[in-house]
Amino acid sequence: MNRWLDELFELLRFPSISTDSRNKDDVQACAEWLAARMKSAGLESKIHPTPGHPVVIGRNKHEAGRLNVVVYGHYDVQPVDPLELWDTPPFDPVEKDGKIWARGATDNKGQFFAHLCGITETIEESGKLPVNLTMLLEGEEEIGSPSLRPFLEEHREDLACDVIVVSDTGMVAKGVPTLGYGLRGIACCEIAVSGPARDLHSGVYGGAVANPATAVAQLVASLHDGEGRVAVEGFYNDVVPLEDWEREMWGAVPGMTPDDVLGVTGSPSLSGEQGYSSAERLWARPTAEVNGIWGGYQGEGSKTVLPAEAFAKLSFRLVPNQDPAKVMEKVIAHLERHCPPGVKIAVDPGHDGQPYHTDPHSAFSKAAQAALKKTFGADPVLIREGGSIPIIQDFKEVLGADTLLLGLALPDCQIHSPNENFTIENFEGGIRLNRVLFEELAGC
Amino acid sequence: MNRWLDELFELLRFPSISTDSRNKDDVQACAEWLAARMKSAGLESKIHPTPGHPVVIGRNKHEAGRLNVVVYGHYDVQPVDPLELWDTPPFDPVEKDGKIWARGATDNKGQFFAHLCGITETIEESGKLPVNLTMLLEGEEEIGSPSLRPFLEEHREDLACDVIVVSDTGMVAKGVPTLGYGLRGIACCEIAVSGPARDLHSGVYGGAVANPATAVAQLVASLHDGEGRVAVEGFYNDVVPLEDWEREMWGAVPGMTPDDVLGVTGSPSLSGEQGYSSAERLWARPTAEVNGIWGGYQGEGSKTVLPAEAFAKLSFRLVPNQDPAKVMEKVIAHLERHCPPGVKIAVDPGHDGQPYHTDPHSAFSKAAQAALKKTFGADPVLIREGGSIPIIQDFKEVLGADTLLLGLALPDCQIHSPNENFTIENFEGGIRLNRVLFEELAGC
Repeated sequence: MNRWLDELFELLRFPSISTDSRNKDDVQACAEWLAARMKSAGLESKIHPTPGHPVVIGRNKHEAGRLNVVVYGHYDVQPVDPLELWDTPPFDPVEKDGKIWARGATDNKGQFFAHLCGITETIEESGKLPVNLTMLLEGEEEIGSPSLRPFLEEHREDLACDVIVVSDTGMVAKGVPTLGYGLRGIACCEIAVSGPARDLHSGVYGGAVANPATAVAQLVASLHDGEGRVAVEGFYNDVVPLEDWEREMWGAVPGMTPDDVLGVTGSPSLSGEQGYSSAERLWARPTAEVNGIWGGYQGEGSKTVLPAEAFAKLSFRLVPNQDPAKVMEKVIAHLERHCPPGVKIAVDPGHDGQPYHTDPHSAFSKAAQAALKKTFGADPVLIREGGSIPIIQDFKEVLGADTLLLGLALPDCQIHSPNENFTIENFEGGIRLNRVLFEELAGC
Repeated sequence: MNRWLDELFELLRFPSISTDSRNKDDVQACAEWLAARMKSAGLESKIHPTPGHPVVIGRNKHEAGRLNVVVYGHYDVQPVDPLELWDTPPFDPVEKDGKIWARGATDNKGQFFAHLCGITETIEESGKLPVNLTMLLEGEEEIGSPSLRPFLEEHREDLACDVIVVSDTGMVAKGVPTLGYGLRGIACCEIAVSGPARDLHSGVYGGAVANPATAVAQLVASLHDGEGRVAVEGFYNDVVPLEDWEREMWGAVPGMTPDDVLGVTGSPSLSGEQGYSSAERLWARPTAEVNGIWGGYQGEGSKTVLPAEAFAKLSFRLVPNQDPAKVMEKVIAHLERHCPPGVKIAVDPGHDGQPYHTDPHSAFSKAAQAALKKTFGADPVLIREGGSIPIIQDFKEVLGADTLLLGLALPDCQIHSPNENFTIENFEGGIRLNRVLFEELAGC
């Protein structure tokens, strides 16, 4: 383990912040380190330039008749500000209290590097892997993976595979192995409400013409009914209901009790669609959220303005089998129908992504569950995730393969925040998981 | 007239912007010019320093048994930006198309200086005025008159009067003499809605905890019912209904037809409390307006955040006999009652002001109407105004006297905006009005 820890610390020292152009050389250096590291493990490695940051590919010698597995990870990291909130420098990793503290420790260097260490151990012990491996490490995940889909399309044949393994999601609690089999989709839009030709004095004109800030609030309020359901007509038409086993399993999932959710969010009380638990609300029910709302005066004190315009950014999380384009059509029709008199509304659709769902009882899923059980000594829980990872759907669409989401991130790992950390227990578990997983998958 | 125009141009050349500390000396210089100008007219003048900009007082020789009249005006002006939208420099007045173009031309230098020219003419012709005059010119109106109420309280005895004359409001249309007898009051507050302890990922947590941006929108939406009425319980309890003569007179007031209101505001359609005309909605009905609303991400593109907090600035315009403090109590109770589950609300009351109303059929009002008719050759219209001028209520409370609002500002005079202007017709009309008005008032 000391060897793997030393190497992980080396990897964590690269400030490979993909969003900051000042770190471009650091991202490149990190890619080169990874290519060399894969080569030293006995893989054939190559750095592929893209319009952004490079994709690093590592492959063992592929043999006919074996299972083709892609292991995906990303070596770029989030920015580190506010720097003053870090207890130790983000790119000077330290080991303390059984954890590795550094930017990228969990997201995602620690997780994919555990796989690479597992692969190295297997090759060193057995001379070869039991599967045809393609390890795909990208450097743009934190900026939305703009180069990945074109890369997948260009290298479709080289990347042809039976299954994809990704460790970039969560473990519901310490010691509870977790297999993710679904992600919510997303549909975004921005609404602009316009009224008078310019900001008006709210005393001189207030009462005789509509106020766009009031109107945008009324439109946002129209999105929900009194039971916390989304009030857009037809919104739930295509929603696949929860299965009984899901409700049963999720009812017992650690980390999702009301106290857990209150603790991690800091919200004064739970809230949401009536008749569903937090896990069900997050993993299997669609939502309408306001990500931003603004109009008029926001400064100190008061300014009695009747604003000419007001805005809101909305996003809808979607579940199988909702289609983002169809949902957005319904949303736009709803907003136009509910637009109050005296203002005009313009809706600008934004990015979207399909919900992802794979069968948790397929042969690959069962193999992954067996590997998780052997590694962590406990029955794995099967969950979906509330977020959206559009590249998983890209894998499905371009490569035609399902993804096993084998998350190693713990709830308090602080990804994207100061004091990001990764437990040595999960790093070591990830290494063992990789070794068992390839064996189990090869037996499918 | 040439003499008065030359002098007004001199007055308009002072960039007496009260809000900008770089113009402090200009405001002082303007005060000194006015003190000298009043002295040259035969008034005793004095500059009173305040913690902010000075108050300039001019008085004729008061004689026992005569009516005491205060004429109020303000010599400070609004800032001029955006400067590039001015056709001519704001402090280099020009005469064009029958108008004087300069910052302060209408608001308020042109209007109060017309009174001073009228006073000067009367003194030059008759040797004296028919009333005991105190002319009170302040330099802080555009920043909320912070020093005026303390000044009134300190000089309560010197300023004792029977009636106050203010030309700082509007004439409903060119050539239509207008007497204002009411102003709306105001009550302001800011609401802060808080939910999770920090901004959350809207995918990971959206659906299980309340979104403060949604909640603030729901709270704002709760302020109105489907008929455009304010839905705060008891909000209309103390509202004095419109009188029949008001509805009749306002129905015929020029400048207030639907086309007029749409033209001046640029709104796509009229909107407001059902069963009332625009004039009635603006001048005699209370409102709830959102002056600002904000929460979450406002930048380019999307950020799938579930914001920890969201805010709104609200203001309520009030009419006789609503009391701002009582209204704010009801508003707070309403907001607390309508606060959705899962968030907390804090309401911070802001500034307020009583609605102002005086009898338009009193002896002073009738004298003012007679003066307006003699000056402009038409029957005056009696209106209220939608805005709030807190100093009018201060005059009432401290000096115990009612104010005659004799507005000379035309709808297209562009106060507070680029290309502010004042018609020479109204400047000249104001001079004649002053001469007739003092005669009429003296006869009361």
